[in-house]
Amino acid sequence: MTLKRVNIGLLGLGTVGGGTLNVLVRNAEEISRRTGNELRVTCAAAKSYDPQQLDGIADVSVYDDAQQVVSDPDVDIVVELIGGYSPAREFVLEAIRHGKHVVTANKALIATHGEEIFAAARDKGVTVAFEAAVAGGIPIIKTLREGLAANRIEWIAGIINGTGNFILSEMRDKGRDFSDVLQEAQQLGYAEVDPTFDVEGIDAAHKLAIMASLAFGMPLKFDETFTEGITRIEPRDVTYAGELGYRIKHLGITKRTAAGVELRVHPTLIPEGRLLANVNGVMNAVLVKSDMVGPTLYYGAGAGSLPTASAVVADIIDVARTMDCPESRVPCQGFQDGAIEDIPVVPMDEIETSYYLRLSVRDVPGVMAEISTLLANAGISIEAMHQYESHSENGRVPLVMLTHHMREKVMNETIRQLELLDVVEGEVVRIRMEHLS
Amino acid sequence: MTLKRVNIGLLGLGTVGGGTLNVLVRNAEEISRRTGNELRVTCAAAKSYDPQQLDGIADVSVYDDAQQVVSDPDVDIVVELIGGYSPAREFVLEAIRHGKHVVTANKALIATHGEEIFAAARDKGVTVAFEAAVAGGIPIIKTLREGLAANRIEWIAGIINGTGNFILSEMRDKGRDFSDVLQEAQQLGYAEVDPTFDVEGIDAAHKLAIMASLAFGMPLKFDETFTEGITRIEPRDVTYAGELGYRIKHLGITKRTAAGVELRVHPTLIPEGRLLANVNGVMNAVLVKSDMVGPTLYYGAGAGSLPTASAVVADIIDVARTMDCPESRVPCQGFQDGAIEDIPVVPMDEIETSYYLRLSVRDVPGVMAEISTLLANAGISIEAMHQYESHSENGRVPLVMLTHHMREKVMNETIRQLELLDVVEGEVVRIRMEHLS
Repeated sequence: MTLKRVNIGLLGLGTVGGGTLNVLVRNAEEISRRTGNELRVTCAAAKSYDPQQLDGIADVSVYDDAQQVVSDPDVDIVVELIGGYSPAREFVLEAIRHGKHVVTANKALIATHGEEIFAAARDKGVTVAFEAAVAGGIPIIKTLREGLAANRIEWIAGIINGTGNFILSEMRDKGRDFSDVLQEAQQLGYAEVDPTFDVEGIDAAHKLAIMASLAFGMPLKFDETFTEGITRIEPRDVTYAGELGYRIKHLGITKRTAAGVELRVHPTLIPEGRLLANVNGVMNAVLVKSDMVGPTLYYGAGAGSLPTASAVVADIIDVARTMDCPESRVPCQGFQDGAIEDIPVVPMDEIETSYYLRLSVRDVPGVMAEISTLLANAGISIEAMHQYESHSENGRVPLVMLTHHMREKVMNETIRQLELLDVVEGEVVRIRMEHLS
Repeated sequence: MTLKRVNIGLLGLGTVGGGTLNVLVRNAEEISRRTGNELRVTCAAAKSYDPQQLDGIADVSVYDDAQQVVSDPDVDIVVELIGGYSPAREFVLEAIRHGKHVVTANKALIATHGEEIFAAARDKGVTVAFEAAVAGGIPIIKTLREGLAANRIEWIAGIINGTGNFILSEMRDKGRDFSDVLQEAQQLGYAEVDPTFDVEGIDAAHKLAIMASLAFGMPLKFDETFTEGITRIEPRDVTYAGELGYRIKHLGITKRTAAGVELRVHPTLIPEGRLLANVNGVMNAVLVKSDMVGPTLYYGAGAGSLPTASAVVADIIDVARTMDCPESRVPCQGFQDGAIEDIPVVPMDEIETSYYLRLSVRDVPGVMAEISTLLANAGISIEAMHQYESHSENGRVPLVMLTHHMREKVMNETIRQLELLDVVEGEVVRIRMEHLS
């Protein structure tokens, strides 16, 4: 079999860059059997790197200047694995300007500068692929753009940040505190020294904005994505939710409604029997509800050197396959350029969902009646209400409630009124709840 | 946006044919937004059909002779939804002979005549797509051929027959008998009047042979696939397995080992915490273990009119995209033609797994010792042994054991010896067990 040679220039030789070299070397034969291609990394740019990464790979020029890679006339595909907004954006645009196809694992870049990058690629007749940007090794981009192409996608709910899921899984399994588990996650290398992107839902919002764009054929709306982190989840909320038959997961949720598209990342109670509720540790999973096929779920490693590289190399293979056939390429955003519709994002006040509430109330007669009356007057119907008498402390007891479906604006106002009651102490804890059915 | 028109000829207007028309009509706009194509069914062949299926679809000629569809010069893609071996095989080959691309949902056809059909397509420069043949609406074919293309796939374990999974789920949830649930499944339309293909694992073996071919780049080996049905599973085995922390699922398993490829469909105990163990009712799921990304799982509806049609139309979209670009097509079996390797199938005697055994033993002292000694002499180590004294009947009690990993040949011989013992009555029940880790 004569192999067609495809030349790759790598930007970045860190965790994912090293993994990509690893996959290309270790599975060179399997990849050639599948594709008929010889995928060769001919050059790379890195400020510093471990030379052992290049063992067994012949003739790779390593520069400390990315410019030499993006402008190398022999390079067919530039693979950007630096991460972050800048200079990744400039390098990617420069690569496109030189007529290179681009593969990237950079969710922050695509979520914030995707439109600019896709437009530049369109003008130059090259393609930009970013499977590794969402849910690591799970082929969710391909699924949304191709596998489900016959469907109108209705909503997506995903566990798309492994760090957050590890923390919540540990809190549930071992009754540990958020900050305690976070420290361990940092020691294990699952969480960054500055964990803000992970635990505040920013990383998940990047991925969610990308998925929404591909699912609904709309622009990238990271800036309009609501985020609420998991830092204020307490072990007792995990316990109470469990007793009521729910688990708390940090979900990215996007939904097409008559009013527009919901885009939100927040801790969420989901019924314990759902597959998504049983995705634990650092694993990711994305549940997609489509009109024809119904619910489908995709599960796997959402991060890590080799899983992410698996997605990067799948992209390289796809790009190589259609390199000489522009008309056979799937559009970057999964929809034809002229067909992208600017669907408005539904303001958080207007979303509808159900809620878990935890109040600290005075342990005196009539409290339940007072609170029930307030809720009834607001038109809120309650699915379950539980007062934990045995958890009484200083004359206060926890009161936990689950509401039926309602508008967030009404809930916000109700929480404000509840906090004004004499019998309620401190802030009301509110966690949104989704049945995913 | 000017749409490119793609003409489709349908063979069969039954459940999936009707669903395909439905998807194409209801989602015509979304599909055009994604693809820039207008996918039009221009003709169809059916012996009998419901004319309402054609409501809202202009200018479809319906023939009772498939020949008129496969030879129609205006048709670009022939979609075969008749099912069964013949005349589906002849129609598909005839369509290829006329230079048509083919999309089919026919697992029996691909599993048994795939090689012949792929060779014919290769000779004519057309493509054959069959996403709907495995796990209905789950895009598992695309995942194996493209999403995981950077990986060496190690093994696959799938719940790939919805009827069987519905029966086992009901048996577990409600303690019902196999035959009782089967009757209900037939009334609900989940099971055929002759349920052999579903409950004996033949349907699953068709799908497994196809997945193995794409995963490992080997010929289709349906004839060499071991099948064991679920007809002899008793409610008490479901209960005992549950008490030991396992669920019984009818799995299709294929594994690449040093000795070759294992290809087997049989009832299987799997740990209750695994996602696959929590896939219930008629739903399907496929767990794929690959070397770089690790385990990934794909879940969704494995049958039904619209879910299957979702996969059929995704294939039509893929075929249309690469219609004018032969070099950008993914090969039918996911590997280049010259790269398919004839890997031998490992005989069942040689596979290694662990086992659940249930014996009916005399309720007398020394039985456990006698059986333990026999097992120890055979070199079998036991993970758990449980005698259900309270289930004693006519002086016999059930004895349940879980073994460690061992060779099937040794287990067969051991079962033969156990059945010769005076203290053991009747046949030993043996169910294979996989940890999927």
